[in-house]
Amino acid sequence: MKNTRINLIARPVGNPTDECWQIEEVETPELADNQVLVQTQYLSIDPAMRGWMNEGKSYIRPVKIGEVMRALGAGVIVESKHPDFKAGDFVTTGTGVQEYAVLDGKDVIKVDTNFVPLPAYLGTLGMSGLTAYFGLLDTGQPKEGETVVVSGAAGAVGSVVGQIAKIKGCRVVGIAGGAEKCKYVVEELGFDACVDYKAGELRKQLKEACPAGVDVYFDNVGGEILDTLLTLINLRARIVICGAISQYNATEKPTGPSNYMSLLVNRARMEGIVVFDNAANYGKGIKEMAGWVAQGKLNATVDVAEGGIKAFPDTLMKLFKGENTGKLVLKV
Amino acid sequence: MKNTRINLIARPVGNPTDECWQIEEVETPELADNQVLVQTQYLSIDPAMRGWMNEGKSYIRPVKIGEVMRALGAGVIVESKHPDFKAGDFVTTGTGVQEYAVLDGKDVIKVDTNFVPLPAYLGTLGMSGLTAYFGLLDTGQPKEGETVVVSGAAGAVGSVVGQIAKIKGCRVVGIAGGAEKCKYVVEELGFDACVDYKAGELRKQLKEACPAGVDVYFDNVGGEILDTLLTLINLRARIVICGAISQYNATEKPTGPSNYMSLLVNRARMEGIVVFDNAANYGKGIKEMAGWVAQGKLNATVDVAEGGIKAFPDTLMKLFKGENTGKLVLKV
Repeated sequence: MKNTRINLIARPVGNPTDECWQIEEVETPELADNQVLVQTQYLSIDPAMRGWMNEGKSYIRPVKIGEVMRALGAGVIVESKHPDFKAGDFVTTGTGVQEYAVLDGKDVIKVDTNFVPLPAYLGTLGMSGLTAYFGLLDTGQPKEGETVVVSGAAGAVGSVVGQIAKIKGCRVVGIAGGAEKCKYVVEELGFDACVDYKAGELRKQLKEACPAGVDVYFDNVGGEILDTLLTLINLRARIVICGAISQYNATEKPTGPSNYMSLLVNRARMEGIVVFDNAANYGKGIKEMAGWVAQGKLNATVDVAEGGIKAFPDTLMKLFKGENTGKLVLKV
Repeated sequence: MKNTRINLIARPVGNPTDECWQIEEVETPELADNQVLVQTQYLSIDPAMRGWMNEGKSYIRPVKIGEVMRALGAGVIVESKHPDFKAGDFVTTGTGVQEYAVLDGKDVIKVDTNFVPLPAYLGTLGMSGLTAYFGLLDTGQPKEGETVVVSGAAGAVGSVVGQIAKIKGCRVVGIAGGAEKCKYVVEELGFDACVDYKAGELRKQLKEACPAGVDVYFDNVGGEILDTLLTLINLRARIVICGAISQYNATEKPTGPSNYMSLLVNRARMEGIVVFDNAANYGKGIKEMAGWVAQGKLNATVDVAEGGIKAFPDTLMKLFKGENTGKLVLKV
């Protein structure tokens, strides 16, 4: 098979530009025993990708220069030399940014597309949803009647965080960029309120939306929004640090949360999470969330970008420009 | 009795200056039922005092303009109309910065000076020691063999934190200002190492002193030192936010810890503490620490400043200049 793939050939400074990427066409190799050939149908487009492009220690090794860009994907088995898979099976796995991936069967997860469409396994029932599920429930520990605020509320993780917090009986306030996203968050996702950070007076807006203060803040953005939230937290609040998309392309040293002493005043906690730590419990999370999807309590739609594999660099930039609504995937 | 007292008459901008204070001489009032008259012998000089001078919400109400400055003190009962106290009893209580205090008996704690000298009840067996005890053990949760770093290591809280961490079997590294303090921390207090932040190359010094990384960081100083520590923490590290003495007199907005995303990379936690939350368990803490003092495992000496009540403003500034070694008290 002819396989078009995208390699990382330079580390970005600030935004990832065209100079970072090389489009290459190669032949897929013969399968060895226990390998499968996966045709990628959807690629998961994630803020974390920006971090994987950097050199240096993080929670996962950087993508090497010259290597296919790392990505999660969903697709179909084309050929199998592994006893557990046959052609036509739908799967999710780390495909990388390429049309075809040769993988060990043990790294591939079969999924059921009878009840949930394939790309949902990259979103609500994939890494984004699991990040929301474990980050909110295990680290945020929301209690019924508490106020939960989530930034990136229209995004892949934030949209699921808020919906789960509603299921748990909390008052849920989102933060998103623009009136249209805020409307989506309230009307489609059922949040109690959503604050438009682009409209200014963020602190005043949040104070009005959170009359009883903030008990849990799930942070996907960092920067000034995190710093503002620190001035609104209640006693023993929990701040879940999930990401900092406002800072990922920064070329200067990021600005730290100057109001962090509010953690002392309020005996509050700020804790970082990485979804991979919950790998042993993914099944439990997917099962519970699939139940909520089936009951109509949890929205599992995705934002599908078109254009095929070569549209990957532009699609990734859509994320950082905030042009997606919910989980962004690229149709290959 | 003639009572000399110091009132707060202006809120400071930056360092507290003479303009903030009014020295006043008044007569002590007649005692009502259940009141006692305490003669202050020692005043506890605490970094937290700077916060109490500010307007605005904190974990305790600000000192009002015109009011006697808040302070913990240790002294002796001169007169009592409360059944539990008699003249000659040694006590600790919130005396305020004054020579004599009229207080309700229920707000006064009798102490035993047969085994431990009176000023130790303002230090190791007082708020500083209790802050160290509960902050380190409950929030820091050090495990045997882990590396614990504490800033302000020669200070009232830091010195106790490190000694308790040693008792718990940890590798203990202090951070202090100047070779003399570092020598005291290692030789007198028994820390494994102490890093002089004034000697430069803080990160390099800490890396050498902590070859296995940092599992618990107990922060008394904030600023650049906190930010540096964030780059050295291990997976699932705990950062205890106890104070930020480097920032208390800042007139600009304080600098936040720009490396806070290390919390995510390392799934680490940063949590604020206030000793008053443990009021119900003070007895347990004092009893265990008194045992360690008796066994010679815990040093209970204090740094006594002379000069009487009028020396309070200058003595407070000694703290912010880092001129004290261990718990600072003013002899009245």
